[in-house]
Parts: sequence; C-alpha cells; structure tokens
Amino acid sequence: MQLLEERIRRDGIVKPGNVLKVDGFLNHQMDVDLFNEMGKELRRLFPSEQINKILTIEASGIGIACIAAQYFHVPVVFAKKSQSINLDGEQYVTRIESFTHKRVYDVIVSKKYLGADDHVLIIDDFLANGCAVAGLIDLVENAGATVEGVGIAIEKGFQEGGRTLRNKGVRVESLAIVEAMNDETGEITFRSQKE
Amino acid sequence: MQLLEERIRRDGIVKPGNVLKVDGFLNHQMDVDLFNEMGKELRRLFPSEQINKILTIEASGIGIACIAAQYFHVPVVFAKKSQSINLDGEQYVTRIESFTHKRVYDVIVSKKYLGADDHVLIIDDFLANGCAVAGLIDLVENAGATVEGVGIAIEKGFQEGGRTLRNKGVRVESLAIVEAMNDETGEITFRSQKE
Repeated sequence: MQLLEERIRRDGIVKPGNVLKVDGFLNHQMDVDLFNEMGKELRRLFPSEQINKILTIEASGIGIACIAAQYFHVPVVFAKKSQSINLDGEQYVTRIESFTHKRVYDVIVSKKYLGADDHVLIIDDFLANGCAVAGLIDLVENAGATVEGVGIAIEKGFQEGGRTLRNKGVRVESLAIVEAMNDETGEITFRSQKE
Repeated sequence: MQLLEERIRRDGIVKPGNVLKVDGFLNHQMDVDLFNEMGKELRRLFPSEQINKILTIEASGIGIACIAAQYFHVPVVFAKKSQSINLDGEQYVTRIESFTHKRVYDVIVSKKYLGADDHVLIIDDFLANGCAVAGLIDLVENAGATVEGVGIAIEKGFQEGGRTLRNKGVRVESLAIVEAMNDETGEITFRSQKE
C-alpha cells in the first residue's frame, strides 16, 4: 500500500536491532485518516462476506481494528494480556512471547465473544516473528472458529513470521512489507506487492 | 445518551462490589456502530475548534478514542501503562492506581506527541474514582498543554471521580452516568441529563 510505505519512509525511524519506530502515526500517536485508508484496503483484500468478527490484541492493534471494522460492519474483539489469569473456564487462554518486551504473556478472550460460528479476520499492527498472530490463531482454533485471514499493517519480511504462517496455508495480507532496513543510513526497502 | 443507556440496561451486567460488566459492547467486544454514535455525541458536546489532539489510555479507551477522532479530525495519542520505565527524559510519566486491577501503574506519553501548543480532549471508557483521568490530566499539564475537556462513555456517578474533577473546573461530559445499581435485581438507575 503506497500511502503507508510513503509514510513509513517519511516518519519511520530505523533503530539498531531491527527496530522500526512508527510511533508517530501507528502505535502511540495514531493517524486516524491513515487508518481509514488502511481499513478500506483491508476490506478490498478480504472481501469475504463470511467475516463476522475482527480479532486483535491490546494495545496497538485496537485502533486499526476498530477503524477497519467500519468497512466490514462487524464487531471487534481484543484479546487481553494478563499475567495472572483467573482460570475459571470462561476464557480461552494462550501464551504469547513478546519480541519487543522480551517476556511471555498469557492472552485471553472470553468464551462469550468467540465461538464455533465465527469467521474471524485477525488484525494487528506488526508481524515479525509471528508469535502474537500465532497466539491469536490458537485462540480462534480453541473456540472452534474459522480464521478467514490475517491483515497486518507492517510486516518485517526479513523475519520468519509471515513465511511460516503462509506456509501453513493462512492467508496473510500485509499493507507494507519491509524487506530490509539499515539503521546507519535509515534506508528502508519494501517488498513489491501488486496492488 | 439514550442509545448508550439502553444498551447498558440491555447488555450490562451488575456484579457485586459495584462492578458493571459491559464487555459485550464496550471494553472487550466492541460495537463500532455504537462507538460511532458515541463519537458524534462527543463532538456535539465538545464543539471547540481548538481541540487538536485526543488523549486516551490503553487499552479500552483506544477504540472509542479512534472512532471519535474521526469527528474531530485530530490524531489520537494513547498513554502506555508500564511497570519498568526507562527514564530517559523523553517521556512524561505519571502514576495511576487501577480500581479494577488493584495495582499501581506508571503511565507514559512520549514528549514528541504532547506539547505546549496542544489543546487536548481526554477520552476514556469509564470514570469511577477518577484516578486514570487525573493521571492523564497530569500528563497534559506536565507537557504545558491545555485540557479542553474530558469525554467519558460511562461514569459511575456514585463514586467521587466526576464530582472531584468538576469541582476543580474540569469540563467532564459522560455519555451515561450510573447513579445507582443493584447486583441482586440487576437494576440500573441513570442520572438524567439534558440532551
């Protein structure tokens, strides 16, 4: 998605350790006009009328998911990170290792909001090693629901998450795929995608 | 706001200890059509053209803030909860005590996204004892920015947060104010507000 790639080039900051800071428009300050364009594009990429729910994970997926949901006319459920789960049987639980924060979270969704009839589009801001998305897929499968696809704002194409998911047959669409980035020059190379 | 009050009556669940569960439409599963009506109403209540930024706090404020921002044409910044702050001087920090989780968080906003020129509308899903909003006001004031007002989805009118803020001269508008609730009968009484 050209608009997003241009914005990443303009406002993204490449830091050592393969860190791409996009907190000026994506995951701390949020440009809602940009999110609307991203939501429209996600709808174009996932036109299935079967999608009846969007699943994301707190915190930075929520804004994109809510804006995108307006083009799907479906509710959004966000999975909650927790470190002390009350295992009362009313929640689906999975464990996710955070690349950014170098720790492991329990992640939960209430059984009331995910069930066997659901056809779920998973949305998140980043796809890198794929742990968060794998955890969300695990929650959907625990519920007996169907993963219709995974929509991502920015994929780090040089990490294994996207390839692993696609090899498993999951439909993953990323609005921008960073193929390489250089923290000395700040240069960012995107994978070319047909639009 | 009648639509929200009706939804709370229909889908809200009153639990012992003055807990109101609205996770079916507000803060776990999110009804984005309802959020749009809430966003329009917040715009009507805060018509000031000076508002140039919306500030909320992760996680459950983000969805409402992003949808509402579409009616204000301004970016959203969400304050991040953290338990291990890197005090590198690049962030405003405050401490917030969580009523729900019975613990204290450090809450941060990057100095890049809040400054003396900003006129900020604070948005959150709940107002009860007011700790979260007081923390957000503290961040805005640390930045030398101006609080234009506080927009809340559901205020618990029987707790002190709303009164304390209004007594300090903060303009607080809550779309629904719960005056009383009964966990045995499930009955919820709203404060009447002129619309």
